[in-house]
Amino acid sequence: MAAGKGTRMKSRLPKVLHPLAGRPLLQHVLDTAGALLARKVVVITGHGAIEVEAACAGGTGATAGFDLNFVRQEPQLGTGHAVQQAVPALADDGVVVVLSGDVPLTQADTLLDVIRASAGNQLALLTLEQANPTGYGRIVRGADGAVQAIVEHKDASESQRQITEIYSGIMAVPAAALKRWLARLDNKNAQNEYYLTDIVKFAVTDGVAVVGHKITDAVQVAGVNSPVQLAELERAFQLRNAHRLMEEGVRLADPARIDVRGDLLCAHDVSIDVNCVFMGQVNLGEGVSIGANCVIANAVIEAGAVIHPFTHIDGEKLGVTVGEGALIGPFARLRPGARLGAEVHIGNFVEVKNSTLAKGAKANHLAYLGDATVGERVNYGAGSITANYDGANKHRTVIEADVHVGSNCVLVAPVTIGAGGTIGGGSTITKSTEPGALSVARGKQVNIANWARPAKKPKA
Amino acid sequence: MAAGKGTRMKSRLPKVLHPLAGRPLLQHVLDTAGALLARKVVVITGHGAIEVEAACAGGTGATAGFDLNFVRQEPQLGTGHAVQQAVPALADDGVVVVLSGDVPLTQADTLLDVIRASAGNQLALLTLEQANPTGYGRIVRGADGAVQAIVEHKDASESQRQITEIYSGIMAVPAAALKRWLARLDNKNAQNEYYLTDIVKFAVTDGVAVVGHKITDAVQVAGVNSPVQLAELERAFQLRNAHRLMEEGVRLADPARIDVRGDLLCAHDVSIDVNCVFMGQVNLGEGVSIGANCVIANAVIEAGAVIHPFTHIDGEKLGVTVGEGALIGPFARLRPGARLGAEVHIGNFVEVKNSTLAKGAKANHLAYLGDATVGERVNYGAGSITANYDGANKHRTVIEADVHVGSNCVLVAPVTIGAGGTIGGGSTITKSTEPGALSVARGKQVNIANWARPAKKPKA
Amino acid sequence: MAAGKGTRMKSRLPKVLHPLAGRPLLQHVLDTAGALLARKVVVITGHGAIEVEAACAGGTGATAGFDLNFVRQEPQLGTGHAVQQAVPALADDGVVVVLSGDVPLTQADTLLDVIRASAGNQLALLTLEQANPTGYGRIVRGADGAVQAIVEHKDASESQRQITEIYSGIMAVPAAALKRWLARLDNKNAQNEYYLTDIVKFAVTDGVAVVGHKITDAVQVAGVNSPVQLAELERAFQLRNAHRLMEEGVRLADPARIDVRGDLLCAHDVSIDVNCVFMGQVNLGEGVSIGANCVIANAVIEAGAVIHPFTHIDGEKLGVTVGEGALIGPFARLRPGARLGAEVHIGNFVEVKNSTLAKGAKANHLAYLGDATVGERVNYGAGSITANYDGANKHRTVIEADVHVGSNCVLVAPVTIGAGGTIGGGSTITKSTEPGALSVARGKQVNIANWARPAKKPKA
Repeated sequence: MAAGKGTRMKSRLPKVLHPLAGRPLLQHVLDTAGALLARKVVVITGHGAIEVEAACAGGTGATAGFDLNFVRQEPQLGTGHAVQQAVPALADDGVVVVLSGDVPLTQADTLLDVIRASAGNQLALLTLEQANPTGYGRIVRGADGAVQAIVEHKDASESQRQITEIYSGIMAVPAAALKRWLARLDNKNAQNEYYLTDIVKFAVTDGVAVVGHKITDAVQVAGVNSPVQLAELERAFQLRNAHRLMEEGVRLADPARIDVRGDLLCAHDVSIDVNCVFMGQVNLGEGVSIGANCVIANAVIEAGAVIHPFTHIDGEKLGVTVGEGALIGPFARLRPGARLGAEVHIGNFVEVKNSTLAKGAKANHLAYLGDATVGERVNYGAGSITANYDGANKHRTVIEADVHVGSNCVLVAPVTIGAGGTIGGGSTITKSTEPGALSVARGKQVNIANWARPAKKPKA
Repeated sequence: MAAGKGTRMKSRLPKVLHPLAGRPLLQHVLDTAGALLARKVVVITGHGAIEVEAACAGGTGATAGFDLNFVRQEPQLGTGHAVQQAVPALADDGVVVVLSGDVPLTQADTLLDVIRASAGNQLALLTLEQANPTGYGRIVRGADGAVQAIVEHKDASESQRQITEIYSGIMAVPAAALKRWLARLDNKNAQNEYYLTDIVKFAVTDGVAVVGHKITDAVQVAGVNSPVQLAELERAFQLRNAHRLMEEGVRLADPARIDVRGDLLCAHDVSIDVNCVFMGQVNLGEGVSIGANCVIANAVIEAGAVIHPFTHIDGEKLGVTVGEGALIGPFARLRPGARLGAEVHIGNFVEVKNSTLAKGAKANHLAYLGDATVGERVNYGAGSITANYDGANKHRTVIEADVHVGSNCVLVAPVTIGAGGTIGGGSTITKSTEPGALSVARGKQVNIANWARPAKKPKA
Repeated sequence: MAAGKGTRMKSRLPKVLHPLAGRPLLQHVLDTAGALLARKVVVITGHGAIEVEAACAGGTGATAGFDLNFVRQEPQLGTGHAVQQAVPALADDGVVVVLSGDVPLTQADTLLDVIRASAGNQLALLTLEQANPTGYGRIVRGADGAVQAIVEHKDASESQRQITEIYSGIMAVPAAALKRWLARLDNKNAQNEYYLTDIVKFAVTDGVAVVGHKITDAVQVAGVNSPVQLAELERAFQLRNAHRLMEEGVRLADPARIDVRGDLLCAHDVSIDVNCVFMGQVNLGEGVSIGANCVIANAVIEAGAVIHPFTHIDGEKLGVTVGEGALIGPFARLRPGARLGAEVHIGNFVEVKNSTLAKGAKANHLAYLGDATVGERVNYGAGSITANYDGANKHRTVIEADVHVGSNCVLVAPVTIGAGGTIGGGSTITKSTEPGALSVARGKQVNIANWARPAKKPKA
């Protein structure tokens, strides 16, 4: 169910597309469905249907494993009405799991338990033990433990209000029974809506056992209706993820100050300092150390590399690779296509884009390497720039092994600096150089004695 | 009351001038008085009186609406003595609200409730329900609910100590009665101080009703006596402010990691990543996205702009404007007077000060633009610098539309680069150029074959 | 005891070498022993013994005060067996305090209480009042309050399980008695291990009083067995340290977002904004202000200096000094040997290494100063670089007082710029200049009218 407007989000974005941990809420639910090895997924859209459908189509990962269908619910006449729209898309066999697109953190194993509870053509409800159940629909069980009814708070008797087991909104129901029951729904109630929960009544009437699978972990069934709830679930997700990382052996300086929005894979003995953000697919090799305040996305960082504080890495689609034992930062930025070999050093205020640096190459200070191929042991001087863009096209700079580029040089691409060559500081190099050459391109120094520097002008 | 020393603050700064959320504690109280539409505010100073008075005079905003007076309490002989000093400055009509300069977070609507409770010439006390009231003065009420006395903890009977309603230090009292009662205060007590709370006794004696307006929100009446308490209130303030922002629709990645010290106005669909700090007046347009770890002060950021992580913006008095759809950062710094048009790109390690950039201009890498006027679609190369300062005076650089400035250039102001012109990489431009021209100012490249680079000297 | 493997740490590093607040767990314990003025410390190693012993030898500070010994426990047959290994190294007189290398936060004064409790040849145990004692060994006391036994959870009777006082693992025991009792240990138990706690039995049998010194502060006796526990203790340590700083008068914007890994000494009226990390020895003078997101290590920052956000300072072994009233950052980096005088300004994207800057010198924008000596009031231009490295050796740059270095200059060391001299923007200076001279080294500007810039190539 992904048709709701989400008025309280106060956003033009459909509610189910708001991101949690970098993925839309609905994508979390789809990914969970994928983890359940669902055959078919039917997304019931409504508000913002076009956007929602487009976003799902672009979803990744586990989504791919099932047959994805969309149906639209217009107008929106209740949860039962929503599921009715899906009926034509549902097979007659199997079990239907009803999920909400705004309940992102239900775990697949919890849902498997619910599905198992529905075995034998039973109706299985996921329920929650809730210390303060005021306002929620209570689960009324008989002496045998079977669910007899879901009673809304306002309809509940005083003794029913003492019940602390509530309905989560999630159920697993055999498809054939679901279709039968949906056909019997009516909207004769205060809201004039078709309630999916009414099928519990029908099940009881039909003598079908209704099983309540109870959990105590409220986060798994918490929905997002407002930015406050979204932030609460974001923090719950991040804290759980931080604990998972630590249980795998990752050392976190502060579990409350790490954000992972995507997949972070860590080898042994990785340590991550405070306030780091990871996005997309990030792989950290053995012994990698990530300093405070780093933002790292779509990158592979190999064993023993040290990422100093304030490093920004984003490989986007091309990716970034940092070789073994490399030293990066502080204040370094690695952009898409940066391929750094072992023991490469990238220092402060250095930007690398779409460039390959071979083993041991260094660019330690205030520099730009774009569209460059840099050989082993090259020393790329402070303030030096590859002028890769002529205002219209991008060109490549090749710096062969053992070259020493002085400070504040410009290498105007396309250009090749031959192996072992030296570029004098302050040179603008427009022509390729031979191996072993010293190349200088600068003006002659002129000194004018006793020069009178401009004086401060009085303010008018 | 703003006369206290605040010994536990261990600071040379008078206690009431310590900042909370970027404003002095006392300024919070003055701003609240302004929100109450107070006619007159009398600040009772003592320790650090000169500093406190100067700071108030420089206060802004709501403060302007009332007649601001200062009286000094020297020596300090108790709260009653403090208020006695204010008597000459008070009119005979109206209601006096007694506030403490070190209790910053009382809400105006709470005080309005207290003022309303004083209607009909009653004495109204703001009280607090406190789970653990040990040490505080208890509110003793009669059968009719009227306050009969404030009893200090040490003077309280066993049954009085069970009372969990305590006095907050805040009261609203008709001016005429206050003056009458203050005249009756004495200091016959263990501390030899004049206690304002003694007027409760007088009110009861005089048959004046004493009304207790009780709240449960301790933050509103919490005082600051130590850096620990200051930090606690700072975090309480920030967390409440974060919730207020979220309720308005702002998406915060972590409500516990945002600091707003001033006014942050957000349009629809603004999202703010972790660990950002906002200061002064900041306006964020629709759909603006603020990356992790940004510090932003005194700026207007228009719709759709994306501020990448590690961006530092401070407009100070001149302000900073970022146009629609602009992309800023990471590692960008915008300083006072930066006026960026729509779709401007400012990239990593770029500083912009007192400069106007027209639509679509770009400075993506390691650059400085100071005192510059930059036309539409200009591409300002990596490492390029406007030399705006001749050691004595600052001069302006004009870069007309569609200019392409190469890498590592110096534009020595005053200078104008004509529209559509091109500056070759590594050039130092000292003379203005014509539209459409290519200008180059660099040495000729000389290559010396087989050059022997200096060898590493053995350590002595 | 530092012999355990720490399997749950999932690390190649021996457990006791994992850092907490920047020091290995074991180093915390050794430093505490130093604070107790221990005569002799015997470290019982096992897993990773060579690494552990090497790390201790390199430990600093309080460690130096005692005679440090190592004994190895191989194989590991229980806590009693561990202490047996230490017997040959122990004197016959005095008191032995048994500590665990993975319990880092026991306070010295707590241990002094335990030692005092052992006076008169008694056995003193440190115990903890624990709300939920399930799984822990209970302290069984007699009517007189003396400890009668430690009963393991699984061996405890129902009434013993109600006991909430548990053994912490820490004891103080007269050396002579300890030796006698250790000799009587056996391993006739389910684990076939020698348990140190069995000596309680022997003491009772021998009529030696067993004293339980009870505390309620679980952090002091908490051990580290997993990355989760390590992170919990790290946060507990940091929060306590933050409170200690605040009690000394330091203003912290957020006590939950400061990390101190080493010694941070603060004078009066220091304020520290959110998310800062301090390492090694850092001294902050009166009125110093540290902006948000700074990382500062091994530095002395003198009175009134302002460190703007995103500043990275690491003095490593050489240290960094920032003079009175200096302004540093944002986005500045000070490296080892940076010695900045009073009122020096170091601005954005500026790196300073092994350089001395005299009073009032300024490098405000995108610059590198390495191996330089900079005189008073020097203005070092944007984009300028000291080329201190010729590819083999480092050389020194001297910039005398009142020099004005233009933008994007290269000063090729060794070179001296005479006092009051001026270097034209874009110059590469290879020869020393006379005082007062204007030096320029750049190409002549050539303008080519109506130049056709390269056109965008169509994609193949």
